[in-house]
Amino acid sequence: MGQTARAAYEELLTRYAESCDLSGASALLSWDQETLMPPRGAEARAKQLATLAGIQHERWSAPQVGELLQECESDSGEFNDEEAAATREMRREYDMSTRLPASLVQEFAAATSAALQVWREAREASDFTRFVPSLQKLIDLSKRKAEAYGYEEAPLDALLDLYERGATTSAIRTLFGELKGKLQALTARVLDKGDAVSPALLQSDFDEDRQGELGVDVIRQMGFNFDAGRVDLSTHPFCTTPGAGDTRLTRRFLKEDLRPGLFGVIHEAGHGLYEQGMPEKWVRHPLGTATSLGVHESQSRLWENIVARSLPFWEYFLPALQKYFPAQYRDATPEAVYQAVNHVEASFIRVEADELTYNLHVILRFEIESEIFSGQLDVADIPARWNRGMKDFLGITPPDDAQGCLQDIHWAMGGFGYFPTYTLGNLYSAQLFQCAQQALPDLDHEFRQGKFDSLREWLRTEVHQKGRMLEPVALIKSATKAEPTPEPFLRYVEEKMDEVYGLSTS
Amino acid sequence: MGQTARAAYEELLTRYAESCDLSGASALLSWDQETLMPPRGAEARAKQLATLAGIQHERWSAPQVGELLQECESDSGEFNDEEAAATREMRREYDMSTRLPASLVQEFAAATSAALQVWREAREASDFTRFVPSLQKLIDLSKRKAEAYGYEEAPLDALLDLYERGATTSAIRTLFGELKGKLQALTARVLDKGDAVSPALLQSDFDEDRQGELGVDVIRQMGFNFDAGRVDLSTHPFCTTPGAGDTRLTRRFLKEDLRPGLFGVIHEAGHGLYEQGMPEKWVRHPLGTATSLGVHESQSRLWENIVARSLPFWEYFLPALQKYFPAQYRDATPEAVYQAVNHVEASFIRVEADELTYNLHVILRFEIESEIFSGQLDVADIPARWNRGMKDFLGITPPDDAQGCLQDIHWAMGGFGYFPTYTLGNLYSAQLFQCAQQALPDLDHEFRQGKFDSLREWLRTEVHQKGRMLEPVALIKSATKAEPTPEPFLRYVEEKMDEVYGLSTS
Repeated sequence: MGQTARAAYEELLTRYAESCDLSGASALLSWDQETLMPPRGAEARAKQLATLAGIQHERWSAPQVGELLQECESDSGEFNDEEAAATREMRREYDMSTRLPASLVQEFAAATSAALQVWREAREASDFTRFVPSLQKLIDLSKRKAEAYGYEEAPLDALLDLYERGATTSAIRTLFGELKGKLQALTARVLDKGDAVSPALLQSDFDEDRQGELGVDVIRQMGFNFDAGRVDLSTHPFCTTPGAGDTRLTRRFLKEDLRPGLFGVIHEAGHGLYEQGMPEKWVRHPLGTATSLGVHESQSRLWENIVARSLPFWEYFLPALQKYFPAQYRDATPEAVYQAVNHVEASFIRVEADELTYNLHVILRFEIESEIFSGQLDVADIPARWNRGMKDFLGITPPDDAQGCLQDIHWAMGGFGYFPTYTLGNLYSAQLFQCAQQALPDLDHEFRQGKFDSLREWLRTEVHQKGRMLEPVALIKSATKAEPTPEPFLRYVEEKMDEVYGLSTS
Repeated sequence: MGQTARAAYEELLTRYAESCDLSGASALLSWDQETLMPPRGAEARAKQLATLAGIQHERWSAPQVGELLQECESDSGEFNDEEAAATREMRREYDMSTRLPASLVQEFAAATSAALQVWREAREASDFTRFVPSLQKLIDLSKRKAEAYGYEEAPLDALLDLYERGATTSAIRTLFGELKGKLQALTARVLDKGDAVSPALLQSDFDEDRQGELGVDVIRQMGFNFDAGRVDLSTHPFCTTPGAGDTRLTRRFLKEDLRPGLFGVIHEAGHGLYEQGMPEKWVRHPLGTATSLGVHESQSRLWENIVARSLPFWEYFLPALQKYFPAQYRDATPEAVYQAVNHVEASFIRVEADELTYNLHVILRFEIESEIFSGQLDVADIPARWNRGMKDFLGITPPDDAQGCLQDIHWAMGGFGYFPTYTLGNLYSAQLFQCAQQALPDLDHEFRQGKFDSLREWLRTEVHQKGRMLEPVALIKSATKAEPTPEPFLRYVEEKMDEVYGLSTS
């Protein structure tokens, strides 16, 4: 690599590191807003976040950054893989920053801000028609965004790519298509079993401090490092990393149900392990972050569902459950807890859905999104389309729009193309875990001993330590030696349902 | 005011508001660093803070800001008082940002960073000689800073002005000179009384959660608004305002002594009320902050000492004390608590010193600082000078430098000229309170009923709501109709010592 390209690359890394400092500061401000900030601080905080975002955008979209990138790209022959990947990521972020005209960014921000308000009212009144004009406006603006970003086949591709690099409507349609029929069939068989499995064992009166301690015990055992992280309360659980060595999880509790608090914090700790597993050499570096939302979700779902809803996990953790809640679990068996945590139900709300039916909610969202963006579906017809889909997939009809197509905030935030990452995460999680099992045949035995380090280290090596070196599909291929496929997930969920619901014995 | 000046002024306000957003973000990052941040987050946090400070400096010291200021100043005939004061403050901050050459800023940052490390080791080893070269270096650099900032009489003036606008060596020398002899004489009389008063009533075994609840009860009663603030734990208590509507106090507890936890949080809440009392119209505005450290300290000390170490205060709060610590206070009287909280002792450590002797520590620091900056004293001779001063003022000789001239961190941070603000705060507090008493003759009675709102509102009107409209001395004059003077403080402390130690009856 020539001297000029080398110098340009180094200068870009310096600027990028500063940009990371600004994102880190924003992340802390946002975290604090959701956890600790006193109510009257909201207005000033919103302005601070806007100022930081504006400055970060201004600096990273500066013409000099574009010139430095060209300098690198024009003489990149001797770039090693890491340097090439870092340049690719910086180019991507620069293009993202510069392709949208400022006027569109502002129009979009104003439209989402208004739409969020309207969506809250419409959901409150369970009246989708009230939301139609705002939603239509956001879809129109999103199509303009797609044009500005550019795409090869479908406008939705440009939006999918924002959350899952390289994802296309057609690839996801293929993947989800394979999944859909089989999930529907399996769901029907499970629901046929009716009340064979009950969640009652997890529904009682659970002291929240004790729930908190149990959760910390579990995620500590998983390997979440509290010297480099913490856990706090918030209304909506999330995971954020305001800086290297500082990964924060949040959680909430339901007094009457153990599941949201416990599986919620395990889910976030799965995200947290990914963040804590980034290579130290890539701190404040273009490659030092997660490669996509789908891969991020694969880590959280792997721990939440595949690990923490397994029998070996409960063979180890039942005593902890008994320690914190002796009255409820004195006479429980690991098998009983295992059954209860895997209870399946046709339900209206995605975020409360079980492992099996969850993906059907997501597939339906994606189908609707692609029909809208291809012009096959009118916005006004979404409720009917949603209800038809729910009937078709789960055999239930939402009693109203609030429990139907109005339930999720994503569209009101303009987040078209986001939903598929949830199911991609589920598919990746099973595909990764299948490989981990092949590499580490003693996993079940280890889980029974409360040992999660070989799994965690395998994930660290195969996923976390790659940072953004590989794009999502390339990462899955590198870790599993196969293209992303729904097969492992289908096999996994079918086996579990068989075990829990005794399908094969019916 | 002409159109151009008006436009320039508005543009400056916009830029200033953005600069406030950056300080607010930095304040939150610093707060978090001291309270919640996991240990491994330290390195990234330091970089974020440096980046934010760098960007803020770069933006506010930009040539355009200088041009806009000139625009305002060249045609300011029709500026109203507020606009003139805001321009004055922005000019001041611009000059502060631009007068120091970048090389000196960097040299100073490197020198303090090194000096802090050496100071810690020297204090640990109680060996001042080890600290001499670092301290000498910081003094030399501070003299260069003083030259760069500019001053009229003494180089130290330029440094004093950083913390207390308009303060000069000669004015402080006069003020402290009046104070010193009288404080020495009074201290001698009190110490003569020996064990007449004991702090034993405040020394026991105090559950920290209960200490926490007691403190919250007290500061809530003072009027600290928890919708616009919060209280957390930290090693060194402080108060910070990361944004309008968001004022945060921190505290620490000693299990064996009620005083640090209780009077500490009252002190910080005094700062907090000042911050919460800023006018809403000046949010993100040059006038919307405290006018000086001395005035800030006057608010904290007024509540901590004049209010919370008064008899009426304890007539009201004894039942709270009894509620949280029944075993210790079942048989206590308000008079006994009042005596114990006003116990005086000749002691070595400033931050632990009582209300009477505290100022002598500060006066000694100031005398040494002014002798050094005027060339009368060599750095190597500081320990002897310090010990001579302590003997002279308090009749005690520090057993070593750690408990003598090495105890405070300020010089190692290059903070020459900072110490006087502590005593200025004490003097202002008494002068302000004397006026409040004249305006509100029922204060004692109100305190006995737990009513602190008329005092708080008086301070809000006379001090808080002025923001930075008035410089410190002008503010004191406006509120008290008199020049800053030590008389009210001397009268106050003499009366109290008389009451507590029965001086006149001896």
